[in-house]
Amino acid sequence: MSRLTHIAEDGAAHMVDVGGKAETHRVAIASGLITMSRDALEAIRQGDAPKGDVLGTARVAAIMAAKRTGDLIPLCHPLGLEAVTVDFTVEEAGIRVNASASLTGKTGVEMEAMVAVSTALLTIYDMAKAIDKGMVIGEVRLIEKRGGKSGTWKADV
Amino acid sequence: MSRLTHIAEDGAAHMVDVGGKAETHRVAIASGLITMSRDALEAIRQGDAPKGDVLGTARVAAIMAAKRTGDLIPLCHPLGLEAVTVDFTVEEAGIRVNASASLTGKTGVEMEAMVAVSTALLTIYDMAKAIDKGMVIGEVRLIEKRGGKSGTWKADV
Amino acid sequence: MSRLTHIAEDGAAHMVDVGGKAETHRVAIASGLITMSRDALEAIRQGDAPKGDVLGTARVAAIMAAKRTGDLIPLCHPLGLEAVTVDFTVEEAGIRVNASASLTGKTGVEMEAMVAVSTALLTIYDMAKAIDKGMVIGEVRLIEKRGGKSGTWKADV
Amino acid sequence: MSRLTHIAEDGAAHMVDVGGKAETHRVAIASGLITMSRDALEAIRQGDAPKGDVLGTARVAAIMAAKRTGDLIPLCHPLGLEAVTVDFTVEEAGIRVNASASLTGKTGVEMEAMVAVSTALLTIYDMAKAIDKGMVIGEVRLIEKRGGKSGTWKADV
Amino acid sequence: MSRLTHIAEDGAAHMVDVGGKAETHRVAIASGLITMSRDALEAIRQGDAPKGDVLGTARVAAIMAAKRTGDLIPLCHPLGLEAVTVDFTVEEAGIRVNASASLTGKTGVEMEAMVAVSTALLTIYDMAKAIDKGMVIGEVRLIEKRGGKSGTWKADV
Amino acid sequence: MSRLTHIAEDGAAHMVDVGGKAETHRVAIASGLITMSRDALEAIRQGDAPKGDVLGTARVAAIMAAKRTGDLIPLCHPLGLEAVTVDFTVEEAGIRVNASASLTGKTGVEMEAMVAVSTALLTIYDMAKAIDKGMVIGEVRLIEKRGGKSGTWKADV
Repeated sequence: MSRLTHIAEDGAAHMVDVGGKAETHRVAIASGLITMSRDALEAIRQGDAPKGDVLGTARVAAIMAAKRTGDLIPLCHPLGLEAVTVDFTVEEAGIRVNASASLTGKTGVEMEAMVAVSTALLTIYDMAKAIDKGMVIGEVRLIEKRGGKSGTWKADV
Repeated sequence: MSRLTHIAEDGAAHMVDVGGKAETHRVAIASGLITMSRDALEAIRQGDAPKGDVLGTARVAAIMAAKRTGDLIPLCHPLGLEAVTVDFTVEEAGIRVNASASLTGKTGVEMEAMVAVSTALLTIYDMAKAIDKGMVIGEVRLIEKRGGKSGTWKADV
Repeated sequence: MSRLTHIAEDGAAHMVDVGGKAETHRVAIASGLITMSRDALEAIRQGDAPKGDVLGTARVAAIMAAKRTGDLIPLCHPLGLEAVTVDFTVEEAGIRVNASASLTGKTGVEMEAMVAVSTALLTIYDMAKAIDKGMVIGEVRLIEKRGGKSGTWKADV
Repeated sequence: MSRLTHIAEDGAAHMVDVGGKAETHRVAIASGLITMSRDALEAIRQGDAPKGDVLGTARVAAIMAAKRTGDLIPLCHPLGLEAVTVDFTVEEAGIRVNASASLTGKTGVEMEAMVAVSTALLTIYDMAKAIDKGMVIGEVRLIEKRGGKSGTWKADV
Repeated sequence: MSRLTHIAEDGAAHMVDVGGKAETHRVAIASGLITMSRDALEAIRQGDAPKGDVLGTARVAAIMAAKRTGDLIPLCHPLGLEAVTVDFTVEEAGIRVNASASLTGKTGVEMEAMVAVSTALLTIYDMAKAIDKGMVIGEVRLIEKRGGKSGTWKADV
Repeated sequence: MSRLTHIAEDGAAHMVDVGGKAETHRVAIASGLITMSRDALEAIRQGDAPKGDVLGTARVAAIMAAKRTGDLIPLCHPLGLEAVTVDFTVEEAGIRVNASASLTGKTGVEMEAMVAVSTALLTIYDMAKAIDKGMVIGEVRLIEKRGGKSGTWKADV
């Protein structure tokens, strides 16, 4: 039976000690989708035209949140991220966010990529909710991670 | 055609001025689901037994994040939340999170409830990802909001 | 038998809902002591002379931490503090900190005063630990609180 | 006469420059005690039973605060903590907290362990103050530190 | 002779107690200028074209920093800002930032507007410093404030 | 024509990937000036006498803000600063701030020094604005930077 890495012998939450791990280059890629009405999608596309801003704002929010992952997720280590990217694709049903995070360090950056995706999607929700409160965030998942002892992992998508 | 509330005349992002709004009691309820393997779900349930902690940790993370919504989501107003609740339901496919936020104030707390749900789900992902990296976060949505000029809204679920 | 206010029916931590409470003027005063070697005490007094700074730095740290109480203590409400004071008294055995916090609001500011005292003491420890690592923080307690439904309370000191 | 490490020549507070220090493995252990009435102690023990939560919440708060030590204590360096542990012991007079922090780096983690202990104790105070406002935090001290140029130090307890 | 409002009787810094002040509508407007080489200015204008982003990013940074003024400036009260606006004008010598902040409350929002302007200018510096490290930030000042006991004030510009 | 380093191919803001850069010792020095009335300048000098505090408070604020640069400036990397210094000079027209930041790392600390200077100046403004709202912040610029691939740069002052 699997053991959760953050649960100590007696069931108490604790940070995993990464002191003995090797510093390797680590990359994580995550993705997510917010589905919305045609009206909301159209407004974002048009509003985005003159000076950017729903997606531009969501991108900035995502990058800033990724840097603060250790402040938000209780058992994540504070990390010196070396890069974060956030990209958007307009799909038929809504907007897809892809984010990557990377560094050379002792622990992975999966959560940083996941936090970036979630924050981008929440910011889109916030900025378009006056048009469509029924938007739904989904398919938030890790797509790939590289580096570290367990090596490369890819989602079965 | 709808207008996005956060886009100024010339397309630049800005906070909506809520100075002229009335102070009313406002409540928002949001929900979300993380689907996972049977192994991961079982480990959370068992690890949870002795001293709480995957769900206990996720709940604390969610409450703390809700209070910092204005720090994370660029155009959200800083709010003096009066209450936040976070509850978990173990379902066949994973764990469902329900969160509510409330206050008496000039603007709604939809984002606070949405941030609470997302942070709880991300924390669960973090604490169980050593067992199952393929977990997926979805169905993150507003369920209901009450108060304010637009009154009550309920999701069509 | 007393009931803890932060434990919900089923034992899960949650913020107390203060939405129904009255806005009253609330004040809290807390105190604490850091005991130290004569050497450390003397160095702080002398180092303090030219430009302030152990106690000046500790005071600023305490005020800033008091304002962030809701960020540090999971179930504290975010509050709009109206005043914080931090004072120091050099005693025979070390340095005593007294702090007060106040606002007009729906919930008390006991934790803000307690956080201010603790942070001032920790900052003193940090700045003098090169001389004396054996300093001990103690007697951190609420001295008095006023306002709110339960009215005035004073420590039995 | 000893010199305070954080006071510059002219008495102005400043961060110690750790640029020339060696990266070594550093560990710090701190401890503290909150004394309380029998009622409060009993309530925490029982409230803790079903889903954890006074101690579970205090542990999460302590871990999160330890990671933010550089945000709270003005002259502490921002550090990439590799591990934090927080444990509780129920004693006759109250609850004792032990915390450790560790990393491989250029400066010690004494303050991280001290901040973890203080935050755990403050969180316990917050969650039980409805039963007993007279609780007192004390005996907050460094127990041991290892690593760095000055090597191992142990409290005389 | 004038008295500094933040200095207590004995010279120690403290927050001004605003508990007795009236809640009025308060507005502050601040401004600042970053001068730069023709190359840098041209790059910002062109880089801004496709998806916004030097100015778009600077605006988001400014709004987020304004909300955290109480976290940055030690003796500022934490405030529930109701609105923040940030606008840019391209001038011959560089880029001018104008920001406004407003709320209904017991204390003014001058610092919120000043922090917004400074953060916008620093973000522009950061994003263009690869082209021109010699950019200079200047003319950062309060332009106007309204509300509160002292009423309206306008800069002599 | 120069290219802005933070603008991706399609114009979207992103963090520069510093993963491939060498770890070198990096130093940055910045400076700035706040001009003010004779009254304000005199009050700061006198208020500063007994326990330090306008400049002492500004120094602490500057050091703390420098450590949080990555939280404030969207595309700055989170860095483990090894040293920050902040010094003040009283000039005829006002107060000049000089700040330095340093670390051994993959990216420079120009922004950390610039943020320290700006925050010190804003804190002075806050603490003296009751005397003189017309104070003006200017001449905020990088004076020198060393280390990294581009080596040493000095302002043409």
